Amino acid sequence: MRPRFHVPDVNGAAVRVELPEDEAEHLVRVLRLGVGDEVDVFDGRGGMWRAEIVHAGKKSAAIRPLQPLQPARELAIRVTLVMSVLKGEKMDEVVRDAVMLGAAAIHPVVSERAETSMAAMARSGRLARWERIAVSSAKQCGRAVVPAIHPATPLDWCWTEKTAATRVMCVEPSAAFADVVPVQKVPKAPAVHLIVGPEGGWSVTEVAAAHDSGAILMSLGERTLRADAVPIVGLTALLTTWGEL
Amino acid sequence: MRPRFHVPDVNGAAVRVELPEDEAEHLVRVLRLGVGDEVDVFDGRGGMWRAEIVHAGKKSAAIRPLQPLQPARELAIRVTLVMSVLKGEKMDEVVRDAVMLGAAAIHPVVSERAETSMAAMARSGRLARWERIAVSSAKQCGRAVVPAIHPATPLDWCWTEKTAATRVMCVEPSAAFADVVPVQKVPKAPAVHLIVGPEGGWSVTEVAAAHDSGAILMSLGERTLRADAVPIVGLTALLTTWGEL
Repeated sequence: MRPRFHVPDVNGAAVRVELPEDEAEHLVRVLRLGVGDEVDVFDGRGGMWRAEIVHAGKKSAAIRPLQPLQPARELAIRVTLVMSVLKGEKMDEVVRDAVMLGAAAIHPVVSERAETSMAAMARSGRLARWERIAVSSAKQCGRAVVPAIHPATPLDWCWTEKTAATRVMCVEPSAAFADVVPVQKVPKAPAVHLIVGPEGGWSVTEVAAAHDSGAILMSLGERTLRADAVPIVGLTALLTTWGEL
Repeated sequence: MRPRFHVPDVNGAAVRVELPEDEAEHLVRVLRLGVGDEVDVFDGRGGMWRAEIVHAGKKSAAIRPLQPLQPARELAIRVTLVMSVLKGEKMDEVVRDAVMLGAAAIHPVVSERAETSMAAMARSGRLARWERIAVSSAKQCGRAVVPAIHPATPLDWCWTEKTAATRVMCVEPSAAFADVVPVQKVPKAPAVHLIVGPEGGWSVTEVAAAHDSGAILMSLGERTLRADAVPIVGLTALLTTWGEL
């Protein structure tokens, strides 16, 4: 398999396109590729090309696209992972896994029991970090689309946003709410917001707000899943149920 | 929720049962519990009790079972995860996740492209480490069964072992084999060996051996999954398909 690079500015008509600096460094210093070597490049919006390296400097590189390629198929269903921000690096893994499983976008939210605040999120460089992880995961898994990482909002965004997407909230096995359904009972929809809670789970108020807004409360079985495993298990279970994995 | 402890020697008729040393330390030094406090204890074979602490020393503790409890339901399907040993701590996560998702046992194997050898496995303390992780994951997820971690064998074990279990081998999207089926086409069976490869994937010979032995070759979609994500995605997809999640 040829090495893959994310080159946002590439298009089929271009004759010379510069790589972003970190991608150029990866190409030159890590993989030690040079002029004439062939690579795959993708624009992050679904386009992918076989390309030839036409320049390789110390911290810069440029390619010329040769031939359009067929990237991994995108899901027919647009899934946005709405994820209550987890501690430290756990969130990195969630972003990586969600991209790998085909999520269309990731929307971090701050819920009551999240281990961060909107103020801390605004100060941190976490959004930029997650964007880099999304690019890196897209490179690994063969997608030509880099999912958008939205700026964090309070959880309320879920209930006030005007959207045609079906809202599906993952709830714990112990949650004593009526109307909790297993994944097999979640109806297929063209767009879905999959809403996943933090380490400490949802407050009763939050689940009630979800329910009142028409969200489907979904259970993923009787065992208690780690918070950082819920997105990968929830996405896989939904996509399997809908024949979209 | 009361804290949970793994106490292999507990049974309903006992009046005083010592905890294993690491569980005693967790109880006394980490959670700072003492005589009279109530905890949940499970025997690792499916039994779980509410219990009272009757002794708490520096490195020892004992309990008295009070009342049998209903643990998280075990899967109706017996799934053994046959996992080609991954590098370093990646394997720890696989064990943790497989226990959380309800696997009945984990059987590590050394395949052609595994980053370890049978000799290195025999010298390492990895089996004991994985057993501790299995206990810890069972505590977290609410199971009263601690899945067995089998000693590592060469991959060939899969094809020579006499078993009534259905063999299902996860293969990569690029694997150019006929007869690869999506997870939805894998027939439900009372016992399954889910066979997952290492970072470098399977060799052609290994996939052919699987096929010749009657194993089902299963694909998990078009995107390339990280090797350490395949077990959690594969288990979730199979259990969802079979209504067993």
